[in-house]
Amino acid sequence: MRPQEIIAVKRDGGELTDVQIEGFIAGVTTGAWADYQITALVMAMFIRGLTANEQNSITRAMLYSGEVMDLSGIDKPKADKHSTGGVGDKTSLVIAPLVAACGVAVPMVSGRGLGHTGGTLDKLESIPGYNVNLSFSRLKRVMKDCGFGLIGQTKQIAPADKKLYALRDATATVPYIPLIVASIMSKKLAEGLDTLVLDVKTGSGAFIREYKESVKLAEALCETGRSFGVNTEALITDMSQPLGRFVGNALEVYECVKILRVEADAAMQETVELSMQLSANLLVQCGIAKRKRDAEKMLNEALSSGRALELFMRNIELQDGDPRICDSPEKLINRKLLKIAVTVKESGYLAEVDTFAVGRAVCDIGGGRVKAEDGVDHAVGFESELKIGDKVKRGGEIGVIYCRSNEQADLISEKLRNAYKISKTPPRIPKLIRARV
Amino acid sequence: MRPQEIIAVKRDGGELTDVQIEGFIAGVTTGAWADYQITALVMAMFIRGLTANEQNSITRAMLYSGEVMDLSGIDKPKADKHSTGGVGDKTSLVIAPLVAACGVAVPMVSGRGLGHTGGTLDKLESIPGYNVNLSFSRLKRVMKDCGFGLIGQTKQIAPADKKLYALRDATATVPYIPLIVASIMSKKLAEGLDTLVLDVKTGSGAFIREYKESVKLAEALCETGRSFGVNTEALITDMSQPLGRFVGNALEVYECVKILRVEADAAMQETVELSMQLSANLLVQCGIAKRKRDAEKMLNEALSSGRALELFMRNIELQDGDPRICDSPEKLINRKLLKIAVTVKESGYLAEVDTFAVGRAVCDIGGGRVKAEDGVDHAVGFESELKIGDKVKRGGEIGVIYCRSNEQADLISEKLRNAYKISKTPPRIPKLIRARV
Repeated sequence: MRPQEIIAVKRDGGELTDVQIEGFIAGVTTGAWADYQITALVMAMFIRGLTANEQNSITRAMLYSGEVMDLSGIDKPKADKHSTGGVGDKTSLVIAPLVAACGVAVPMVSGRGLGHTGGTLDKLESIPGYNVNLSFSRLKRVMKDCGFGLIGQTKQIAPADKKLYALRDATATVPYIPLIVASIMSKKLAEGLDTLVLDVKTGSGAFIREYKESVKLAEALCETGRSFGVNTEALITDMSQPLGRFVGNALEVYECVKILRVEADAAMQETVELSMQLSANLLVQCGIAKRKRDAEKMLNEALSSGRALELFMRNIELQDGDPRICDSPEKLINRKLLKIAVTVKESGYLAEVDTFAVGRAVCDIGGGRVKAEDGVDHAVGFESELKIGDKVKRGGEIGVIYCRSNEQADLISEKLRNAYKISKTPPRIPKLIRARV
Repeated sequence: MRPQEIIAVKRDGGELTDVQIEGFIAGVTTGAWADYQITALVMAMFIRGLTANEQNSITRAMLYSGEVMDLSGIDKPKADKHSTGGVGDKTSLVIAPLVAACGVAVPMVSGRGLGHTGGTLDKLESIPGYNVNLSFSRLKRVMKDCGFGLIGQTKQIAPADKKLYALRDATATVPYIPLIVASIMSKKLAEGLDTLVLDVKTGSGAFIREYKESVKLAEALCETGRSFGVNTEALITDMSQPLGRFVGNALEVYECVKILRVEADAAMQETVELSMQLSANLLVQCGIAKRKRDAEKMLNEALSSGRALELFMRNIELQDGDPRICDSPEKLINRKLLKIAVTVKESGYLAEVDTFAVGRAVCDIGGGRVKAEDGVDHAVGFESELKIGDKVKRGGEIGVIYCRSNEQADLISEKLRNAYKISKTPPRIPKLIRARV
């Protein structure tokens, strides 16, 4: 069937057959479909909608546009965590060694930051020498040794997704749940998992801000995962303020190492709590722990014994990085950086954070990407100990910008100040875990 | 505004502002918009719809993406006829010299054939030497001399339309009235006309087959023309069978020359009738004739006196062609061609013609284009004197294929036979002029 004929079916609101969807995704992968035909069909999908069957069919076709990891040689539960992305969202680096220490094999394929959100790969690359470009077979060897490995999306993994995402980004067709589901799940299913826990963000720093939409996304992700035989659960978690203390690649790794060293301060407790909750959920899903309480006990033990930190150091070594950053995490913070405080204009309570604006501000000084091909300055970022509900005094500190020049600070100081909204009355404090799907 | 933001407005069903539409069309013209962004927006327009204001705004932006002819130096009514395209539709070559002989200046910008339909440019190019690639200034000189000129769409004329049409053709977004209107009218308005008559086809050989849709298209075209200050009227005319006697480029020119020589046979009367009706409408619109009856008298005089033929010969000469084809039109019919008869299987009445299939059959033996970049064999074609309602006997002739080989004839004989549907009872005979808008 010619592309035009397949496009016309969806243009007129019809349901595409599995064969038509396979033809489309094969056309994306091989280049038999022109980019302008791909985006015309995607726009028709966006407006006309996709059925559950079409959504699964796209996921399947994208998954099999590449290779699926064969982890049959590893005699452990194969599990992963995936987050829909946020600001200061650094739990992967804590969860992977933690659950690995409890006997889970974690083949984590991650992405780079884009727009206001950070990406696990960029964070990892702020560790000197760390290599995220491993083949499937090397990833497997790393996992056999330390229990987990962290790599980027290779050409082997769902190649259709990469192209499709770039085209959607340029044509205002990203925020559509069935296509988001197909994009996320085609990559996660390529990991050859048996268990998956999803961290679906909601609030001002999430891709999908509305709570109800976040729940819909979580449900669609879980249904798709389960229909492919993967035990999938989701937590809906708060992204109405940056997670933990730091935003910025190296600064976030610093926070994770502090947590793994059991040296987390008060402002890092949120990161600890979310990492623990997601990890506990995963251990119960895998059957390693019977109840959440047992899982938490195991995780606390893995942390306090130093087992998780040990595995993290071993992983860094195996992936060509310098594990000494775990001995002296201060090395992660570039001493040449300027630290410029952002202060509060009026006294009151921190009522609300425009988390998107905070992410964009860090992006503006080089800490993230506007376009996929941009470079990233791993060192820069923003630190804030202020959480919604905290009392602040006029002239008090919102946080500290870590930057290269005063010009950079000038560029974003006011944006950050405006992102932190102060009220006279105490606000409702958001719950970190909003729901479980 | 970024393309994504403009796309998102129409994606969500909003109305685009004039500035947004200008940005879009400028982006098409300059290449600032990627092809895949153009098709995403066009698909959103197709599904969400365009308001009358948006339609006019697109037409205006496409028109001014190029140059508008300045015909102020010509002291005559400037008028043109445009047809939405059909099979055997050759009236332009009769109408242009006819109305020119009555004092109208005709700056006719025509297209090439595509798919099942023929194009005036291809017909003209079957005249040895005929040159359709004139600049605006040379076209003007030709018009000043013989009253009309015939050229192709240059890069000066609505360049955005050309690109947009090619992308729509590849993405199943051609059959949408507001975009058809913008495409047609942006080119016609570039001619600097004061009067325009439209021949909107309806039936099995038309782009838009449904009568009601044809009326909608005619209304939309007229409204747009009038809103740009051009006196625009439309006839809805029958395309439920090929027009006149011949289909095929050189063969159609032959038919036109025979008509201009006042030697038209019975099977050509339909072409004569439609040319007369459209010309008469144009003369009344221009104010050259008061009533249709006066116009017809003037046109008959222009034809029978040989004035129209004289102007046609002069035009051919001015556009580098060989005018002797008008002295001996038989020269237009290649003597090396095979003539293969197609016969009827059963006796009865010709009830219906799949005119689209007839056009495609001629295309299949090289007489038309499947893709815009294909070449054309001007000589080949199909002749039929059979009209709906005619009585036929088993073994009688449907028509004659003019082709290069028996293989070509074998390829399309059966298709042509099946395109002519015979019934036992006499059918209703279609009226040539269905309505006037």
